[in-house]
Amino acid sequence: MKLTEEQSKEIKEQQSQENITKRVTVPELEKVLYEAIPILDHGFIRVVDYMGDDTSIVQAARVSYGKGTKKVSTDAGLIKYLMRHWHSTPFEMCEIKYHVKLPIFIARQWIRHRTANVNEYSARYSILDKEFYLPAPEHLAAQSQNNRQGRGDVIEGEQAKKVLDLLKGDAEQTYNNYEMMLNERYDGTVIDEKAIGLARELARMNLTLNTYTQWYWKTDLLNLMNFLRLRADRHAQYEIRAYADAMLDTVKKWVPISYEAFMDYRVGGTEVSAKGKKVIKKLLKGEIITVDQSGLSKREWNELMEAFDLKDKLI
Amino acid sequence: MKLTEEQSKEIKEQQSQENITKRVTVPELEKVLYEAIPILDHGFIRVVDYMGDDTSIVQAARVSYGKGTKKVSTDAGLIKYLMRHWHSTPFEMCEIKYHVKLPIFIARQWIRHRTANVNEYSARYSILDKEFYLPAPEHLAAQSQNNRQGRGDVIEGEQAKKVLDLLKGDAEQTYNNYEMMLNERYDGTVIDEKAIGLARELARMNLTLNTYTQWYWKTDLLNLMNFLRLRADRHAQYEIRAYADAMLDTVKKWVPISYEAFMDYRVGGTEVSAKGKKVIKKLLKGEIITVDQSGLSKREWNELMEAFDLKDKLI
Amino acid sequence: MKLTEEQSKEIKEQQSQENITKRVTVPELEKVLYEAIPILDHGFIRVVDYMGDDTSIVQAARVSYGKGTKKVSTDAGLIKYLMRHWHSTPFEMCEIKYHVKLPIFIARQWIRHRTANVNEYSARYSILDKEFYLPAPEHLAAQSQNNRQGRGDVIEGEQAKKVLDLLKGDAEQTYNNYEMMLNERYDGTVIDEKAIGLARELARMNLTLNTYTQWYWKTDLLNLMNFLRLRADRHAQYEIRAYADAMLDTVKKWVPISYEAFMDYRVGGTEVSAKGKKVIKKLLKGEIITVDQSGLSKREWNELMEAFDLKDKLI
Amino acid sequence: MKLTEEQSKEIKEQQSQENITKRVTVPELEKVLYEAIPILDHGFIRVVDYMGDDTSIVQAARVSYGKGTKKVSTDAGLIKYLMRHWHSTPFEMCEIKYHVKLPIFIARQWIRHRTANVNEYSARYSILDKEFYLPAPEHLAAQSQNNRQGRGDVIEGEQAKKVLDLLKGDAEQTYNNYEMMLNERYDGTVIDEKAIGLARELARMNLTLNTYTQWYWKTDLLNLMNFLRLRADRHAQYEIRAYADAMLDTVKKWVPISYEAFMDYRVGGTEVSAKGKKVIKKLLKGEIITVDQSGLSKREWNELMEAFDLKDKLI
Repeated sequence: MKLTEEQSKEIKEQQSQENITKRVTVPELEKVLYEAIPILDHGFIRVVDYMGDDTSIVQAARVSYGKGTKKVSTDAGLIKYLMRHWHSTPFEMCEIKYHVKLPIFIARQWIRHRTANVNEYSARYSILDKEFYLPAPEHLAAQSQNNRQGRGDVIEGEQAKKVLDLLKGDAEQTYNNYEMMLNERYDGTVIDEKAIGLARELARMNLTLNTYTQWYWKTDLLNLMNFLRLRADRHAQYEIRAYADAMLDTVKKWVPISYEAFMDYRVGGTEVSAKGKKVIKKLLKGEIITVDQSGLSKREWNELMEAFDLKDKLI
Repeated sequence: MKLTEEQSKEIKEQQSQENITKRVTVPELEKVLYEAIPILDHGFIRVVDYMGDDTSIVQAARVSYGKGTKKVSTDAGLIKYLMRHWHSTPFEMCEIKYHVKLPIFIARQWIRHRTANVNEYSARYSILDKEFYLPAPEHLAAQSQNNRQGRGDVIEGEQAKKVLDLLKGDAEQTYNNYEMMLNERYDGTVIDEKAIGLARELARMNLTLNTYTQWYWKTDLLNLMNFLRLRADRHAQYEIRAYADAMLDTVKKWVPISYEAFMDYRVGGTEVSAKGKKVIKKLLKGEIITVDQSGLSKREWNELMEAFDLKDKLI
Repeated sequence: MKLTEEQSKEIKEQQSQENITKRVTVPELEKVLYEAIPILDHGFIRVVDYMGDDTSIVQAARVSYGKGTKKVSTDAGLIKYLMRHWHSTPFEMCEIKYHVKLPIFIARQWIRHRTANVNEYSARYSILDKEFYLPAPEHLAAQSQNNRQGRGDVIEGEQAKKVLDLLKGDAEQTYNNYEMMLNERYDGTVIDEKAIGLARELARMNLTLNTYTQWYWKTDLLNLMNFLRLRADRHAQYEIRAYADAMLDTVKKWVPISYEAFMDYRVGGTEVSAKGKKVIKKLLKGEIITVDQSGLSKREWNELMEAFDLKDKLI
Repeated sequence: MKLTEEQSKEIKEQQSQENITKRVTVPELEKVLYEAIPILDHGFIRVVDYMGDDTSIVQAARVSYGKGTKKVSTDAGLIKYLMRHWHSTPFEMCEIKYHVKLPIFIARQWIRHRTANVNEYSARYSILDKEFYLPAPEHLAAQSQNNRQGRGDVIEGEQAKKVLDLLKGDAEQTYNNYEMMLNERYDGTVIDEKAIGLARELARMNLTLNTYTQWYWKTDLLNLMNFLRLRADRHAQYEIRAYADAMLDTVKKWVPISYEAFMDYRVGGTEVSAKGKKVIKKLLKGEIITVDQSGLSKREWNELMEAFDLKDKLI
């Protein structure tokens, strides 16, 4: 990721602010505020604003439960309790805003999380940057053989080179033709003084889905955790996971207690179905149970055995 | 409104904070941060946190429009443009959090605005305060004769006294019986050592709808303006308008440019229907048009004439 | 629950319809369409409209996964898969609308589920029915000693009688005074021809929270399941659980396959935290682990042991 | 638009259903149910399900207003009243579901309307159709000179031909290379038996933004009208307006009374600002007012004069 001079200057200016406020602040997060954290080849995330911290969650919960919360001795105890019992509203009391640069095909996954506020760069108004995502060699994976939406082995050698050449060639060619149709280069140079340019809202359709876009994305902590639970998961596509992982780091700096509860109860946790519970109960009693008796499908059975480290029971 | 000693102390502590932040701050709003602004007889609103200011809206809009916005010379011009053309998402980039104390029947109106985050005092957990709303004499109005949901003349004299006595008497009696059923007074005193108390989640049903509750309420500027547009309107019930008016003041301190655009384009503006436009066009040309020719109902006709100060055309 | 003659007539008329449609229909649900299912002493739920069935979920999923879903042989298999992996959007493709009559203090819990459409009877416009909830003797429970928001033993004998007398007496008195202030009885009779009535929007504040209200409530299947997961749970307050249980029955009739998956993966399932998983893994291997080694709080430990029927390990 | 044989067969089967229901039905909408209405060169919309009709709005409003609405004599009168006064919730009681095929760059605009349920064809799972949007000659417009996001004159002759050639050539080439990377043609043919294919979730990034995708899109009438108000507007991009116009037709068939009120109060209506009202008032009184006295910007002044047909006052 290479920032333009203008961008670097803007970030420096933002970071040099020293404002006085009566609001709660989070020194750990302030340290990285506005900083562009590089993701993929040209992308980044930046935390550009936030509201609240761990104590804001506690404050909201104590309003709800009134004197009822006096028994819970610590803030950490209360936050863990809230997370464990799926009490959602106190976590909505914290808000965060990111500036994100990301490839369009990832933006299309991301935007499906509807409970967020978004302002995206508009290619109806302006010309998009000449930047497109090309996977690093270690992420150039084959289609998985047993998972319709997964990746298999890494592709190497000649074929890898060919794939990268195709991606690069097509992105460059379509971008050049985009400029041609606009009759204008990204830097504003007019290509042919005698010609007129195609409307931007039309010309953009020629770009490939790995072209980078950017947006401001603002959400509350609850919805951010819902996003991260799905997108920092190992089943998520690598490219969005790269963003989610970096965001997890910012959550850790921002609300460390909630972060820990989230990792314990959501990310590291497992949902066991009613049928699955019967199986585990039997096994705990030392009884024998087969997949047929369990009512589970073969796939469910294996997922359950893996979750509880029962590798010898895989079928 | 009388704050408890504990509340006054908490507010003082919150206000004495002097934190350093790189985030944008709004000195005018900081001045009233945490302060309890009295509403009705026992209610209040307090701004307890906020994110962003007028420049945050501009910042988000400029990401959307990229180089395309260079022509709009000032921030104020851009904000007015956004408001006029119903561009909504940049206004979602600002967030505010209130602590509100309000009667339950008003809370029930308020909560219908769904795009907000709420943590309410729970009467399942804790005992509610012994505070209930009694209208000031000048707000004790009769049912309107021509508007099913409005108020008419103020009720005075004997009848006013009687109404207030009934409201007060019933609220006190039902609250006393609430304590009786709980076998516990608000201050924690047990009433009868030998008896057991009814579950709080049940006993609360005996309270009247003018009992005060409280909540933390957080929303973005766009949804706040949607709320204020309806609730600071003269058709809104007086009791919720009292809250909305106080909140309008905080919006003015927080985002003065957006506030002005909001007052001009939304609050002070008028929606003219297609049929209404035809009428105004004719009148502007000096032509004559009757209600029958207009296709408007009598009521619509009068609303239109009033909006444009054509009192002599009322029918 | 006693329906008025007018209501019974309206329901009969609705049920006598025989319309032809090309939309998918669910004969089992049609059988109870419009029927008022009694809840509590004066409440009810009625399914008044619906959109889609189990096949609509499959249809939407197959659009998403395209040819990718061909491998999943059956609709039931696909729905179970979606539920297990928290795929949410296909379940949003079914919609249902209820007409509900319920006490106000329950309505206040219910309305916190924001992702639904609601039209409630307005006491600003109209006079509320003279109906209020009084718990049946077996639901008159004491405050729980160890759970701030729960119920303990049933209250019996003299104290029970006294509680019911207070609830009944206060509800009747406040309702009578409500009529007095309105200067109008529910049936429209004017009380004092020479007096004027207080505005309805004010008089309503004198009613107690067990007064019945009613609304139309419409939501999609995903959000309905989120509602039922919390409200049909044994930790939910009995009075809202009564509604949730009746709604669960209608879900079973409407989308039987989704219902079964929901009961298996959500209602009957258990979330095990990362720390909890370590404990179960150890126990499955026959190893010994104490609460101190586990990192769990005493309360969490006991919840885990109960979930897996390890009663001898309770501490 | 050319449907595959399989699609045509599925539509025929859906349309041949004759189910009996007690739900309200709309014969006019049933006539076009499931039918693929062609949009652009390869797109379509199909209404695939609906819930409610004009009477459902009235029904919900009458629950809200109870006896209070008896005075409004007709359903049409009530619906117009609701629309005029921005009463939103009754319109949420109707729901509709569309199946839409549309170019990706339009899908990206469309998805910004968050209050809807969506299931989109997933290119992580399945291979996208070889179909891409090419504008018809009359829609090949130049960038507007005075509107950053608008279109100017139609481009013709040599330049038009060149633009279409570029769009077509690039779309075909990138699609061919997409198949090459996948090592699989759309019809399932493997290209090189010895090679392995790139993961679908990666290969898709090579496609251009005019490639067609499809989704099921479900929303309530209120949010549909919000969508149509913006997207059937003359400022909307032609390509999304084409979809919105076709959807407006289905709304007219579905809820004709609401449609008419919507066209009168929203689509054909004008919002006049507080300052704008002052200008119109003066003009109605025959007084003179200049743009400088008005406080309006030149642009606002002209918008106002155009809205009220005062062409001689344009500056």
